[in-house]
Amino acid sequence: MRAYAMLGPDKTGWIEKDYPECGPLDAICRPIALASCTSDVHTVWENALGPRVDLTLGHEGVGEIVEVGELVRDFKVGDKVLVAAITPDWGSVAAQGGYAQHSGGMLGGWKYSNIKDGMFAEFFHVNEADANLALVPEGMDLGVAAMLSDMLPTGFHGAEMANVQFGDSVCVVGIGPVGLMAVRGAYLRGAGRIMAVGTRPNCVDVAQQYGATDIISYKEGPIFDQVMDMTGGEGVDKVIIAGGDVDTFEEAVNMVKPGGIVSNINYLGSGDYIKIPREGWGVGMGHKTVVGGLMPGGRRRLEKLAAMILNSRVDPSLLITHRREGLDALEEILFLMRDKPADLIKPVTIIEW
Amino acid sequence: MRAYAMLGPDKTGWIEKDYPECGPLDAICRPIALASCTSDVHTVWENALGPRVDLTLGHEGVGEIVEVGELVRDFKVGDKVLVAAITPDWGSVAAQGGYAQHSGGMLGGWKYSNIKDGMFAEFFHVNEADANLALVPEGMDLGVAAMLSDMLPTGFHGAEMANVQFGDSVCVVGIGPVGLMAVRGAYLRGAGRIMAVGTRPNCVDVAQQYGATDIISYKEGPIFDQVMDMTGGEGVDKVIIAGGDVDTFEEAVNMVKPGGIVSNINYLGSGDYIKIPREGWGVGMGHKTVVGGLMPGGRRRLEKLAAMILNSRVDPSLLITHRREGLDALEEILFLMRDKPADLIKPVTIIEW
Amino acid sequence: MRAYAMLGPDKTGWIEKDYPECGPLDAICRPIALASCTSDVHTVWENALGPRVDLTLGHEGVGEIVEVGELVRDFKVGDKVLVAAITPDWGSVAAQGGYAQHSGGMLGGWKYSNIKDGMFAEFFHVNEADANLALVPEGMDLGVAAMLSDMLPTGFHGAEMANVQFGDSVCVVGIGPVGLMAVRGAYLRGAGRIMAVGTRPNCVDVAQQYGATDIISYKEGPIFDQVMDMTGGEGVDKVIIAGGDVDTFEEAVNMVKPGGIVSNINYLGSGDYIKIPREGWGVGMGHKTVVGGLMPGGRRRLEKLAAMILNSRVDPSLLITHRREGLDALEEILFLMRDKPADLIKPVTIIEW
Amino acid sequence: MRAYAMLGPDKTGWIEKDYPECGPLDAICRPIALASCTSDVHTVWENALGPRVDLTLGHEGVGEIVEVGELVRDFKVGDKVLVAAITPDWGSVAAQGGYAQHSGGMLGGWKYSNIKDGMFAEFFHVNEADANLALVPEGMDLGVAAMLSDMLPTGFHGAEMANVQFGDSVCVVGIGPVGLMAVRGAYLRGAGRIMAVGTRPNCVDVAQQYGATDIISYKEGPIFDQVMDMTGGEGVDKVIIAGGDVDTFEEAVNMVKPGGIVSNINYLGSGDYIKIPREGWGVGMGHKTVVGGLMPGGRRRLEKLAAMILNSRVDPSLLITHRREGLDALEEILFLMRDKPADLIKPVTIIEW
Repeated sequence: MRAYAMLGPDKTGWIEKDYPECGPLDAICRPIALASCTSDVHTVWENALGPRVDLTLGHEGVGEIVEVGELVRDFKVGDKVLVAAITPDWGSVAAQGGYAQHSGGMLGGWKYSNIKDGMFAEFFHVNEADANLALVPEGMDLGVAAMLSDMLPTGFHGAEMANVQFGDSVCVVGIGPVGLMAVRGAYLRGAGRIMAVGTRPNCVDVAQQYGATDIISYKEGPIFDQVMDMTGGEGVDKVIIAGGDVDTFEEAVNMVKPGGIVSNINYLGSGDYIKIPREGWGVGMGHKTVVGGLMPGGRRRLEKLAAMILNSRVDPSLLITHRREGLDALEEILFLMRDKPADLIKPVTIIEW
Repeated sequence: MRAYAMLGPDKTGWIEKDYPECGPLDAICRPIALASCTSDVHTVWENALGPRVDLTLGHEGVGEIVEVGELVRDFKVGDKVLVAAITPDWGSVAAQGGYAQHSGGMLGGWKYSNIKDGMFAEFFHVNEADANLALVPEGMDLGVAAMLSDMLPTGFHGAEMANVQFGDSVCVVGIGPVGLMAVRGAYLRGAGRIMAVGTRPNCVDVAQQYGATDIISYKEGPIFDQVMDMTGGEGVDKVIIAGGDVDTFEEAVNMVKPGGIVSNINYLGSGDYIKIPREGWGVGMGHKTVVGGLMPGGRRRLEKLAAMILNSRVDPSLLITHRREGLDALEEILFLMRDKPADLIKPVTIIEW
Repeated sequence: MRAYAMLGPDKTGWIEKDYPECGPLDAICRPIALASCTSDVHTVWENALGPRVDLTLGHEGVGEIVEVGELVRDFKVGDKVLVAAITPDWGSVAAQGGYAQHSGGMLGGWKYSNIKDGMFAEFFHVNEADANLALVPEGMDLGVAAMLSDMLPTGFHGAEMANVQFGDSVCVVGIGPVGLMAVRGAYLRGAGRIMAVGTRPNCVDVAQQYGATDIISYKEGPIFDQVMDMTGGEGVDKVIIAGGDVDTFEEAVNMVKPGGIVSNINYLGSGDYIKIPREGWGVGMGHKTVVGGLMPGGRRRLEKLAAMILNSRVDPSLLITHRREGLDALEEILFLMRDKPADLIKPVTIIEW
Repeated sequence: MRAYAMLGPDKTGWIEKDYPECGPLDAICRPIALASCTSDVHTVWENALGPRVDLTLGHEGVGEIVEVGELVRDFKVGDKVLVAAITPDWGSVAAQGGYAQHSGGMLGGWKYSNIKDGMFAEFFHVNEADANLALVPEGMDLGVAAMLSDMLPTGFHGAEMANVQFGDSVCVVGIGPVGLMAVRGAYLRGAGRIMAVGTRPNCVDVAQQYGATDIISYKEGPIFDQVMDMTGGEGVDKVIIAGGDVDTFEEAVNMVKPGGIVSNINYLGSGDYIKIPREGWGVGMGHKTVVGGLMPGGRRRLEKLAAMILNSRVDPSLLITHRREGLDALEEILFLMRDKPADLIKPVTIIEW
């Protein structure tokens, strides 16, 4: 079968791969919608996973089942299914402890285009199909459905880890597609004021539609200073980091109130240490919690988040700026993500078979 | 000074009361907006607090400070202030344990028109002013500000105790003004589907504006049956009870999933026992949590919830169906609350001095 | 194979059963230790599960694996294994939501001697072996290991649901083997004062060894009165119910402080409603949480609790008052549990093959 | 009155101070027991609070009330009282949000020998006496009572922030008096294995009495390596940091499992950044929570922790290696703390008037 892969550092292209093997608990899907992700860009052009060869890319998509293992009970060939980027082993000790995304080791639930081949192919594999798939709700746009793989659950997880409470002030650093979903997640957890840090006009516009009340541009001075000005020197209750790097934590910790939380959903690709400023962290005693985590996966999660779209709590279609058609558009949507033209937030391709 | 009081069972009227004494931590306010509450009706016509005599009514209002104690630091004469219905003792052991509303004994934070005279008078007393008041934000409508005393915090507390999570299905039983705020609270905690139980057309309309996705009328059969039909027999994740009586819990427990929560914010005026069905409660082992609680008060809470109004997360003005002017309108707004005409949700009177 | 079963209401005996079928994820074990439980007594003599015929009894035991399915990776024939009474389906939506014990419907994780045959046989079946078994730690007494099936996890779960905090006062109602484990669980969650309600001298003695500081006998007056006397009228922070019936909740709710929790781990076999007193429950607003739940199962749980025994945090051997040998002792240990002689807490039989 | 003070950098001595002013909510106490703390040493010899002049030292002690303000209701002259090192403003917004220790700004609840004079004097001041004092329980040793000011609540708070659960493996880094209390706190929250990092024989001995199951010495190689060896490469569920410096976090984060918590109770006196290793932190997504916080104060806390001593859950007398008598012994106990002779854990002086 054809697959679009990382051929080696900085190189991508179409290759032939074997049709995936379907274990007794598994399913094989044809992709019917696919999206590219900044993580794919990190993988290919920033060596994030090391110098991988012939690794099929892609972890955001919607599938149609073409084969199921003999122990699969709830899905059948022909079902159109939501698939999360994270597909844990649900019987594992890690899952039993509430951290399924770390089954098989830290980040071990992240299998697509990491531990195994990704979704950018004629067929892709789903482990523990009953536990990791959910039906595409009737009438849901397939591009929107693809946002349930990673963008929506990752952004919303930022708001969950931040434990946003009614009336909290929240600063969301970075308003790419994940940050935008974090803005919406913060809104839907009851935030009062939401300060979104970003500059791209299309993202700023969507941030405001999602509930951001203030826009902060790094071009107008340090973020910390602007947040302190806006809050009369008090700082914010919560910070969600959806962009930047290991240095971003310094401002985040400094701007959050004692008792507050800095919640990271940004992949940190370089640097030896996360920079937590000793004084701003209360010389160790400021009750400023710092946490970062991979999105949870699983059928329950997919169903819950799909219910939020169906009930008009969040409209991920605002993220989708570029729609293409067919499997052959994969290269284009990947390069769009890499080159980030001014009008891009998120590209998808819809595939008919 | 003049005060509008419960004179005795079923009797209300204007009486003369002494101007309240201002302790060193306290403040005295003139009311500049007042609302009547179903609780006032319970007090007068249903003997909820016993046969009280000459008890000034009212616990929902906005004030202008006319006197402050010598230890008050953050407020001064002339300040326009939000006042919560619940005004705890913040140094108490109960408050230190996170349950300030029960300082001085269960429900002890509820002082207005209970332990002391209420707000329906020319002046009213505020204990621990620095801890129990907040400034009325500039530009906030005074009627809306009065909704911060009880309606908004009580309804939202229902959603908090229900611990609504992203995508949860929530059934809100009762859509009077508190139930309507619970609908909005559930929406703003991330509920997916929200089923609101009620029949009055004006309330149904506001429920939908606040985020209800389904309306259930008891006239069309048992609520339990309707919820089960709507959910394919699964039931809901959470139930918020904002109406009904001790029998309401039977359906609520039966319709909530294992691991779910039944959260009560309804004053239960009669009946010996809350009816928790043994079988529906999993013969004691179904992990169906039942909790009910009085709204928290305090300056921090007022400021947080005011921030939600200012940032357009909730518009309490939809509750205010009847606006009057002057202190003399108190009798009218109380009787409106008692008689509940078809077009009523919540009446307020705005008072200029 | 031979199995000791409920033949019908009030009747037990040995019967022949087919050797259980081993699915690809499953294991088949020989029992090497078995204990009888009050639940077995409820099943046979109180009709708790209805008029069941030829249902193999038993859900507390330790096994030696004789067969594993082809997808089992972590266990092999010959392994000696801990088995919990509750063996959930870990890929289920319920498990993904943190309530594995309710996979397949409320209480659905309770399979042994309920949904399928129990452990009182020459062989018994374990579903999802990798997820539901744990190795018996080297050197652990097999009788003690059998306490990890139900007694220890159920009692400790009572303390978990009660969310015991440092210095909390806790009343444990009922000090049979589960209640005794709840006493120890409360101690090991940081309780200050622990009041244990019970009268049997051997249980009282163990309760005190486990950390009970006060013993309350119902023979000396209502429990509520005694608790109030002991606490200067304040009541306790938490109540764990491990005995009694639906009426027990009345005293429990009345004696718990606002903000407190009543945590039930007692199977409630009769009565239409749990009795929650309206006034004691703060007319719906006292923040007295009422919760009851089935113990969690799973490998992680077994390993965690085994670690507590290995590290001398709890000594379940104090529960084991009667030790027998061989499979044929099953009838005797069941009847001991039914007849509860004065010196009984828990009987086990150790089986060599 | 006489006071023992920091005269300037590296200099201490007796000076004359004015008798403290007693506000209406306050109390003035004579110390009847005092302990010195490593924080006093940091203050004087490490410039931790800057170059302070004539600042009375001391924040651990027990008092006898000699004066109360006119608004104090629950305490009277002659009462012997527990006093926490942290004495918050309970009406503050920070306290209402659950972080009283940060009232008046980050760490603002730490007033003694910081914002105001400490306890090392003939008299000391207590703000909000009703909220910040608790009676010394009858029969409690005064040296033990002094451990309730800081050692016990700080150590136990480490276990609370670590959210230790039944069977967790916990590594406690540093077993000075606070670390020892963290060991006991971890034990009393249900830890299974507790690995204590330290080398001093007297501390090791007490750690084992408090529940440590393994002792790790940095002399035998990197802590990380030893922990990994002991856990078969899995790491621990929780780490409590009670010693070391900003570099200690690197090993702590590396050794904790995904989903685990690093809980800091150590004052971090130098270094620009807390060292959180990017890779060990899961490139931002490992769900390894890092938190550090100042102990909570308040009457409720004092009463709860005193109940744990009274009910034999913890015996702080094991910490007290040196007992002196009289106010004049203050210099000796301070210098003992600075010089840390081999047999020292904690020195106290008992003062009769």
